[in-house]
Amino acid sequence: MEKKLWQHIIQVRNTSPLIHNITNYVVMNNTANALLAVGASPIMAHAKSEVEEMVTLSHALVINIGTLDEYWTESMFIASKKADSVKKPWVLDPVGAGATSYRDTVLNQLLFFKPTVIRGNASEIIALAKTADVVTKGVDSTAISTEAIEAARNLHAKTGAIICISGETDIIISQNQCIYLKNGNSMMTKVTGLGCTASALIAAFIAVVDHKTEAVAAAMSLLSIAGELAANESAGPGSLQTHILDKLYNITEHEFLTHLKIVQS
Amino acid sequence: MEKKLWQHIIQVRNTSPLIHNITNYVVMNNTANALLAVGASPIMAHAKSEVEEMVTLSHALVINIGTLDEYWTESMFIASKKADSVKKPWVLDPVGAGATSYRDTVLNQLLFFKPTVIRGNASEIIALAKTADVVTKGVDSTAISTEAIEAARNLHAKTGAIICISGETDIIISQNQCIYLKNGNSMMTKVTGLGCTASALIAAFIAVVDHKTEAVAAAMSLLSIAGELAANESAGPGSLQTHILDKLYNITEHEFLTHLKIVQS
Amino acid sequence: MEKKLWQHIIQVRNTSPLIHNITNYVVMNNTANALLAVGASPIMAHAKSEVEEMVTLSHALVINIGTLDEYWTESMFIASKKADSVKKPWVLDPVGAGATSYRDTVLNQLLFFKPTVIRGNASEIIALAKTADVVTKGVDSTAISTEAIEAARNLHAKTGAIICISGETDIIISQNQCIYLKNGNSMMTKVTGLGCTASALIAAFIAVVDHKTEAVAAAMSLLSIAGELAANESAGPGSLQTHILDKLYNITEHEFLTHLKIVQS
Repeated sequence: MEKKLWQHIIQVRNTSPLIHNITNYVVMNNTANALLAVGASPIMAHAKSEVEEMVTLSHALVINIGTLDEYWTESMFIASKKADSVKKPWVLDPVGAGATSYRDTVLNQLLFFKPTVIRGNASEIIALAKTADVVTKGVDSTAISTEAIEAARNLHAKTGAIICISGETDIIISQNQCIYLKNGNSMMTKVTGLGCTASALIAAFIAVVDHKTEAVAAAMSLLSIAGELAANESAGPGSLQTHILDKLYNITEHEFLTHLKIVQS
Repeated sequence: MEKKLWQHIIQVRNTSPLIHNITNYVVMNNTANALLAVGASPIMAHAKSEVEEMVTLSHALVINIGTLDEYWTESMFIASKKADSVKKPWVLDPVGAGATSYRDTVLNQLLFFKPTVIRGNASEIIALAKTADVVTKGVDSTAISTEAIEAARNLHAKTGAIICISGETDIIISQNQCIYLKNGNSMMTKVTGLGCTASALIAAFIAVVDHKTEAVAAAMSLLSIAGELAANESAGPGSLQTHILDKLYNITEHEFLTHLKIVQS
Repeated sequence: MEKKLWQHIIQVRNTSPLIHNITNYVVMNNTANALLAVGASPIMAHAKSEVEEMVTLSHALVINIGTLDEYWTESMFIASKKADSVKKPWVLDPVGAGATSYRDTVLNQLLFFKPTVIRGNASEIIALAKTADVVTKGVDSTAISTEAIEAARNLHAKTGAIICISGETDIIISQNQCIYLKNGNSMMTKVTGLGCTASALIAAFIAVVDHKTEAVAAAMSLLSIAGELAANESAGPGSLQTHILDKLYNITEHEFLTHLKIVQS
């Protein structure tokens, strides 16, 4: 599988998919730069007057609710509904799921339009599962990751979406696969929006790669390895934010394959 | 007092307060990164449907009017009113006070909800005092800093807020204290939004430090010293923006204490 | 002319014009930082309640439709109408012209308020000319640049605006002049929003330089040379974004004049 992941990275570089982002204000600049760095083309557009046209001309869509409000959520509904109806792959990033009842209401509606992939941290995935009325036993959970994996399996069963739980180990759950990625560096948690970047990169990969689970694994491992290599030459999170973009742009096959830590079950 | 300021920095690192920001588009990314770098956790949220819940679950609030509009100001009113009613400390950053009548009207209303701290540059503090119908003699002022200090004293007397005037020398004015901080580097004026970063860091410190005036002094001195040290290794303001984040993250007690220039009266 | 361009750069540094930006979320931070780096003062403000006042107190205006919506376009109309009526120079950046019918409708209305300069890439200028019912022959075009130049000439004839087509070669078209600038580096296309930065810098230069075509040439050549020099010391687009700001700030006359590649016809 390792070689395939690299081929997917090359495919994104060669085909330059157009990725439509309805995302949060905090991360827009970094998200656009990360997409450019891996070879994709970003569009940020949220006007109700144009989001349907934008979905049509793009190759994939990202919905990230980080700084949602009543106008933006309407745009998100229009765009995700359109993506579902014209079969464009799309990624849901449920930022802050569980933090407010408003977020949970919006997320529940977004699930209706069948995201191709949902990426969040463990607590977001657990909260989203509750929102979607997916019962997790809880009692049997001996650790948050166990609870998150169960939530992810149930979310997948209910929605059909590939679920990606990001964290110290990234876990990707789909019908027949469970992939564990063990790359990254703890300093990455001190850079805002790298989770949002991950969601955008996933969109770039599912836009052009047929095997969607591999696409998610390629996007996540690319970002984590880039972060790991960038952290080695960064005095702090400011430099890390900059160097990750450099590494997404100039990473070599050798660097990628020698650092990749992937486990499948 | 010097040792206490460092203890406050450690306290923020150890307690990781959740800081709710209703701030401007220009600085959101840097603000979030600066909060992460000092050990706090940022939330950016402005939807009227959720700001009250966000205030409740956060440890402090920042209201920054930099790119205000009619919707956002409503959110600011709801959030600051809530913060006042549940006794959450909050910081007002009156960006562009005096520039338009709209800003002054909004600021006057925000003062009604009793900010814990107000931070602005000298001209903003002077404009805000006028907005609040605090008369400054003007005639006696021999320099802008004299006028700003008088405006700050009168603003403090009227609102109860600690007033922080930022500039080449930062001046912190409260009931019984006047603190002068003489750190920083002139290149910091060429990086957008470091004033906004200061306001966000103040929120992180008043969230967990009981002595609010010391909390403000700790936040302001931390940022100024980080800027001073970062400027020494920066070829220009692009690098400086990056290196300040690194230094906020990795500054040591020795660096902080040997550079701190503080005068009390 | 080369010496004059450098004098214009010095004039911006010395006079620090106030530039009002109604621009897109993705680039606001970099735009503000680029304006500060060249010595100008940025204001970002879009509230309908204050944009007229902001236009009045600024020295030039930028309208950039990158992340437009119904509210923001109203603000853009109010601001550009005001700029036209009080004779403030303003720059139109038609981001994504031709991508959706909504963008084209908005652009057509903005043209009514007579932008001083329009800057876009070749496809945006061609799309804008179509929107403005400027017929381009098309048939005679042997290359996109030929078509873009014809579109620019026709747009200039219809609107009176100086047209700047940015790309590998930047082309500036006005009444009696056609200027070609051949600086830059291909890695600049991997940094989001450098076109938007160009538009903002143009505003800073037309704010204070009487000869508007030279002002545009000075802004464009400054950014391209800064990008060229910054690329030489950048491992990727993350570093490039940072180093361009440094170079805009510290570029010397010698660096500028020895690298400038300008052709007039």
